[in-house]
Amino acid sequence: MDDPTSPERAHPTVRTTRQTRLDTYVDRYATRTQRMKASEIRALFAVASRPEVVSLAGGMPNISGLPLDAVAETLAELVMDHGTRAMQYSSGQGDPGLREQICAVMAPEGVVAHPDDVVVTVGSQQGLDLVTRVFCDPGDVVLCEAPSYVGALGVFSAYECEVVHVAMDDQGLQPEALRRTIAAVRAAGKRVKFLYTIPNFHNPAGVTLAAERRTQVLDVCTSADVLVVEDNPYGLLGFDTDPIRALRADDAERVVYLGSFSKTFAPGFRVGWVVAPHAVREKLVLAQESATLCPPTFSQLAISAYLTHHDWQGQIKHFTTMYRERRDAMLTALDEHFPATASWTRPAGGFYVWVRLPPGLDASAMLPRAVTARVAYVPGTAFYADGTGTTAMRLSYCYPSPERIREGVRRLAGVMATDLQLREMFGATDAGVPSRGYSSPHTDLT
Amino acid sequence: MDDPTSPERAHPTVRTTRQTRLDTYVDRYATRTQRMKASEIRALFAVASRPEVVSLAGGMPNISGLPLDAVAETLAELVMDHGTRAMQYSSGQGDPGLREQICAVMAPEGVVAHPDDVVVTVGSQQGLDLVTRVFCDPGDVVLCEAPSYVGALGVFSAYECEVVHVAMDDQGLQPEALRRTIAAVRAAGKRVKFLYTIPNFHNPAGVTLAAERRTQVLDVCTSADVLVVEDNPYGLLGFDTDPIRALRADDAERVVYLGSFSKTFAPGFRVGWVVAPHAVREKLVLAQESATLCPPTFSQLAISAYLTHHDWQGQIKHFTTMYRERRDAMLTALDEHFPATASWTRPAGGFYVWVRLPPGLDASAMLPRAVTARVAYVPGTAFYADGTGTTAMRLSYCYPSPERIREGVRRLAGVMATDLQLREMFGATDAGVPSRGYSSPHTDLT
Repeated sequence: MDDPTSPERAHPTVRTTRQTRLDTYVDRYATRTQRMKASEIRALFAVASRPEVVSLAGGMPNISGLPLDAVAETLAELVMDHGTRAMQYSSGQGDPGLREQICAVMAPEGVVAHPDDVVVTVGSQQGLDLVTRVFCDPGDVVLCEAPSYVGALGVFSAYECEVVHVAMDDQGLQPEALRRTIAAVRAAGKRVKFLYTIPNFHNPAGVTLAAERRTQVLDVCTSADVLVVEDNPYGLLGFDTDPIRALRADDAERVVYLGSFSKTFAPGFRVGWVVAPHAVREKLVLAQESATLCPPTFSQLAISAYLTHHDWQGQIKHFTTMYRERRDAMLTALDEHFPATASWTRPAGGFYVWVRLPPGLDASAMLPRAVTARVAYVPGTAFYADGTGTTAMRLSYCYPSPERIREGVRRLAGVMATDLQLREMFGATDAGVPSRGYSSPHTDLT
Repeated sequence: MDDPTSPERAHPTVRTTRQTRLDTYVDRYATRTQRMKASEIRALFAVASRPEVVSLAGGMPNISGLPLDAVAETLAELVMDHGTRAMQYSSGQGDPGLREQICAVMAPEGVVAHPDDVVVTVGSQQGLDLVTRVFCDPGDVVLCEAPSYVGALGVFSAYECEVVHVAMDDQGLQPEALRRTIAAVRAAGKRVKFLYTIPNFHNPAGVTLAAERRTQVLDVCTSADVLVVEDNPYGLLGFDTDPIRALRADDAERVVYLGSFSKTFAPGFRVGWVVAPHAVREKLVLAQESATLCPPTFSQLAISAYLTHHDWQGQIKHFTTMYRERRDAMLTALDEHFPATASWTRPAGGFYVWVRLPPGLDASAMLPRAVTARVAYVPGTAFYADGTGTTAMRLSYCYPSPERIREGVRRLAGVMATDLQLREMFGATDAGVPSRGYSSPHTDLT
């Protein structure tokens, strides 16, 4: 992900993630800090970032198509004309003009919101952090799809929540499973704080919540009086459809909506947002002020100027055309090379395909061999809080070229074939990498 | 602080901070959220941001002297030459090149650090947030100067810490008081997590920790085995001195150092940093990844390019010349207009003068009358966690022109004289504004 020639690579995190040094501060940390762990697979990703490895692991958007000269001009004008405002402190809630534009960005999803309802955040990751900070005490239960976004699992862990997964299938979250899970959690005497869901082009599952299920999910949450946190970073990146109606469009009081410019423009400005009911929004602003005083003014005005002066919707079309081509390359290669005993999702947008391995294979155990064969992916266990997911993997098609994607899938199919042969000869493969537990969300895993 | 004509002012926070609406989510919040309160004086500050009011309240740096055309060119080049990197995700620890430059920025303070020891944060406010997140459980004690930075008190409150104040005087924190306080807190069965201190040009007290006391403070903390969090946003803004030796320079294992570009360049990029011992740094990076994935890449590379291509040290000289002139204007006006029964500090750098009022006056009670007289300040209570500070106020000289500063002090002296007369006639003045408790750090209060 990072530039492999950067100085950071000269001080690899391998050494530190293995925690061979004695931590003399260990008795001073907060309880929550005991749960902070570097990903066991991070050392492998340091290797995987070498150019000869095809990474189907990362979730970095491919922003090579952005019109750099035009963006440069826009930012130079921003500094010339509004520099002392753009480089100054600003409101903890975020720039009022940008918040108005954000409302317009959400309108095609049916979201009717006032700029007052929007809180700008340092990427939607910080939106997740602040929402969890406002709602969750240690021990509170957060319901998540199975699998779920690794960065969200990391936040819930940092706030000492218990994650309980809810079954999903190719149509997304299963409303009946949701209803049963809420009942079971409550029967166990636990408190459900909210359902965290990614309805569109799910990370990592690559599926989209079916229209009829949207109503059902909201119905279940209404009758059980459970809040919904709707995370929608990929909503405008559909390949075949108009923007899909958001859950927030149908319930402004029950749904907290998270949005982001990271995938529709560029992640390096770190601008996301939360839309929340009035009272919750107030708490989020106070939490934001405590966390950062205010989100970066310059980033906000840069995004605002980009939306004003550029054909941002045309740029999104450019992105989706590119991503669709890559998705097609991946699906075609999977059809061609992967064994019939594997199965995978067919995403209609976003960045990810979720693969269920042939019986007997373990994605975590296989990863070192895959990296040796110059291809990387994220094992399924990263997306579960409960140690399951060993038999699945996430493949991302957002960043490499179609040709590299095809090559990566071919290599991966070879590794899988070898593993299957070995298994046939010697029985189950060993668990080469510990598979349990979730960890901090490195950008490899976004 | 904000543009008084902005849309946000059209939806004033007055309505919401009074909490007249029923919050139907109140039973769902985390325990910590019960402690999040909008400042009682925020509504007044909305009025105080009108142009006819001289605000001696805000802590906004005056960045009108920045060379906007040159900065514009630098940022345009950054986008043209490195746009896809500057607008992409990056390392959770921060850009390696910037971290190297940060080490050079700290070198004149005697800090010897490796880029590996530095974690970039979203302003040093986020540094405070992450350090507290890593170390503090609810109920843990944080030692703070009396008074202390309002934004730090807000963070400690958000993490449900107990703040215990330690006496300071014109030479800064009193080492003997520190020793006694640690002993008393421990005798009460409580756990001290760290001392939070602002050694240079203190916000709000305007004093600097004397050289001999630096050794003594470190000695007390060493013998009591207490960590030190050294917050140094103003360190390079001394008027008469070379940079002062940092506490971190003399103990790399005990001191966690917080730095910022907000006052030496511009706050709108939100770039600060933490220097921490190796093991702590690892935890901070994991906390940063959970909080934001990574700090804004664009902001970091913008600062890095500014440091590379501009005479940033010359710019700091320009800033300190300007701020010195304003400090002089304030001190002269105070000498001229304030009653002999008031006293105040004489800062050798930074932004703030701390005024102790004549006996019998209450700074919180007086504030509405001051705003009516078109001058604003921050009452002393904002800087204490224990409700004390009623007889003090913070005056900032960083933003208004010398002429406006003189006018503001003159107006304030008039309000004070009236209050003293009233008191002579009718006894103690009423408490017009609730004075207890600290609250979220609005940028009015930075």
